[in-house]
Amino acid sequence: MRDSYVAEMKGVILGIIPNARIVDITHQIEKFNVKMGAYVLASASPQFPDGSVHLAIVDPGVGTKRRPIIVKTNKCFFVGPDNGVLALAVKNIGDKAQIYKIINNAFMLPEVSRTFHGRDIFAPAAAYLARGTSPAKFGPEIKRMRIPKFARSIRKRDRMEGQVIYIDDFGNIVTNLTETDLKRIRIKGKVNVKLGSTELKLPFCGAYGDVERGKRLAIVGSHNFLEISVNQGNAAKGLKAQIGDKVVVC
Amino acid sequence: MRDSYVAEMKGVILGIIPNARIVDITHQIEKFNVKMGAYVLASASPQFPDGSVHLAIVDPGVGTKRRPIIVKTNKCFFVGPDNGVLALAVKNIGDKAQIYKIINNAFMLPEVSRTFHGRDIFAPAAAYLARGTSPAKFGPEIKRMRIPKFARSIRKRDRMEGQVIYIDDFGNIVTNLTETDLKRIRIKGKVNVKLGSTELKLPFCGAYGDVERGKRLAIVGSHNFLEISVNQGNAAKGLKAQIGDKVVVC
Amino acid sequence: MRDSYVAEMKGVILGIIPNARIVDITHQIEKFNVKMGAYVLASASPQFPDGSVHLAIVDPGVGTKRRPIIVKTNKCFFVGPDNGVLALAVKNIGDKAQIYKIINNAFMLPEVSRTFHGRDIFAPAAAYLARGTSPAKFGPEIKRMRIPKFARSIRKRDRMEGQVIYIDDFGNIVTNLTETDLKRIRIKGKVNVKLGSTELKLPFCGAYGDVERGKRLAIVGSHNFLEISVNQGNAAKGLKAQIGDKVVVC
Repeated sequence: MRDSYVAEMKGVILGIIPNARIVDITHQIEKFNVKMGAYVLASASPQFPDGSVHLAIVDPGVGTKRRPIIVKTNKCFFVGPDNGVLALAVKNIGDKAQIYKIINNAFMLPEVSRTFHGRDIFAPAAAYLARGTSPAKFGPEIKRMRIPKFARSIRKRDRMEGQVIYIDDFGNIVTNLTETDLKRIRIKGKVNVKLGSTELKLPFCGAYGDVERGKRLAIVGSHNFLEISVNQGNAAKGLKAQIGDKVVVC
Repeated sequence: MRDSYVAEMKGVILGIIPNARIVDITHQIEKFNVKMGAYVLASASPQFPDGSVHLAIVDPGVGTKRRPIIVKTNKCFFVGPDNGVLALAVKNIGDKAQIYKIINNAFMLPEVSRTFHGRDIFAPAAAYLARGTSPAKFGPEIKRMRIPKFARSIRKRDRMEGQVIYIDDFGNIVTNLTETDLKRIRIKGKVNVKLGSTELKLPFCGAYGDVERGKRLAIVGSHNFLEISVNQGNAAKGLKAQIGDKVVVC
Repeated sequence: MRDSYVAEMKGVILGIIPNARIVDITHQIEKFNVKMGAYVLASASPQFPDGSVHLAIVDPGVGTKRRPIIVKTNKCFFVGPDNGVLALAVKNIGDKAQIYKIINNAFMLPEVSRTFHGRDIFAPAAAYLARGTSPAKFGPEIKRMRIPKFARSIRKRDRMEGQVIYIDDFGNIVTNLTETDLKRIRIKGKVNVKLGSTELKLPFCGAYGDVERGKRLAIVGSHNFLEISVNQGNAAKGLKAQIGDKVVVC
């Protein structure tokens, strides 16, 4: 926000759809940290009204061959580079998604720079979607988007494997396993969690206060991801958890 | 603004009132600093149009028994926890205020977390108020809100007692005494100010330039609070004033 | 954004034009750094729709005799103090501009402070312009605005003289010479650039990739100013360039 980049993108959007209602999610994602961008987008997007267009750009590969894409779910649209920044949010929405590659330069700025696709490709795409342009007009539908390791959960018979994607200020250990993932293995009452090499048997709760103060629990947090937490305590510290740690649940 | 919290609240608001015009006052209040939040809200709110809904959350007591409230004045609404964060702004508006406790969960998100009432209770309340819902629908009217020490001014015969609530970048010493407070003791021309243990006799001015450069003065600043200032100088330094210092005016 | 200042200005604007669409460009210009403010404004403003009102305030001279002005171009309006903060943006638009001094207090807040013209004079002016008030109603048209040294380019026969106004994160050396300036001296193919005391003969390119990796080039960047760059390298480092360095082009 110190430079003019964000404002330029908003200017472009308002030039295409003057009555756009633009909401900033954040401009403080660490440079090139796709995972952090993906997590914040996944946390924020479910709270927005149906039909919203979410534009997310953490784009270390700008100017290379990574694809610019549109993802359509039943609830909303996502626009961004196909480098995984959209992957957690799409997984979290849980819908069947259709993916389109943006190639039609009728929906780009007249001159596309090699350094600022945010302004030249992504902002116009988001604006035209908000104005009602069908996603199929931007380019061909493609089979799948890139799902980076941090957005993958794998079912192996009765267990789900994922990883730690975030550790919040309270020390809650957020995994990439969603409520839908857990439903597939029908967890009830107690849950076995392997975090790195530590094996835990935890109560699967609806609220932190369902266990005594200082006790560990498993819970689907307000952002729809499985967390390992301590009621009024710091789970990450006690368990020496780190972002990227493997998580197995059964 | 680094995390998704603020954006989630805006998403919730736009889900309830899609044409809401949301203006950020600040997201840089120090953690748990209710007094700082109260001062910035009191400074900003008088400039907004009649009918505005002001949402202010500095909420160290989230999940405890502190009450969520709506304050209705003739000019605008305030929404927030009843911990004093709204107190200076309401005092500054100067109107008779009606206070309502928010208990009706028809105007909350379907699931209310214990950690994020900003999104689950306060944002929806602000949005429904902006949409025209009467404050009485949210819950019972209550007699009084909590007025913390920093928002209290006491009249003792011909004198008003208050405290220093802010020291700005220029070294102006801002007190919690409003123009209305001063009218009650009919100050004219000169004013006696006791700041901590220092006694001052100051000209009561309409502009900093009404005294010579380097001279002290008392003035009601643009935010409607009594300030002790030095024309083109730093009053706080010379007087070793600090936030919380007692102020007596007569 | 920590204090209430920006919010107060937005409150004032919405009081005058309730359906204003306000976009923040930046609030992170260094204190009193008029040149930096001028550059960011010049970078952002061309991307906004026709008819936009751009409000820019870096105002070390507030309360002194510097004039508050409105600049009208064919594309948009600029509002701010006449200290050069608008100069690069107006130059970049390239239109014939009309300049008006703001003196009519019918379009100011009822009480104008000596410390916060942003709220009391500039925000109302921008709001009334956005509402359709003719710029001539604000005060007399004046011949010229103040053009500080950093916004001046001088033609001397077949050469243009300017200066370095910005060095970006990639080490690109941005000058204050616009495409229009270069057209006046009809550059083609190769360009002679004197940067400080260093003489360079550079290919005049349409894209960074038009030269080999590591080679220097001259290019009109996405912000419409002449840059001296190195393809995938840092031009400023190699040339020891600094903001303010004189630039001569022929």
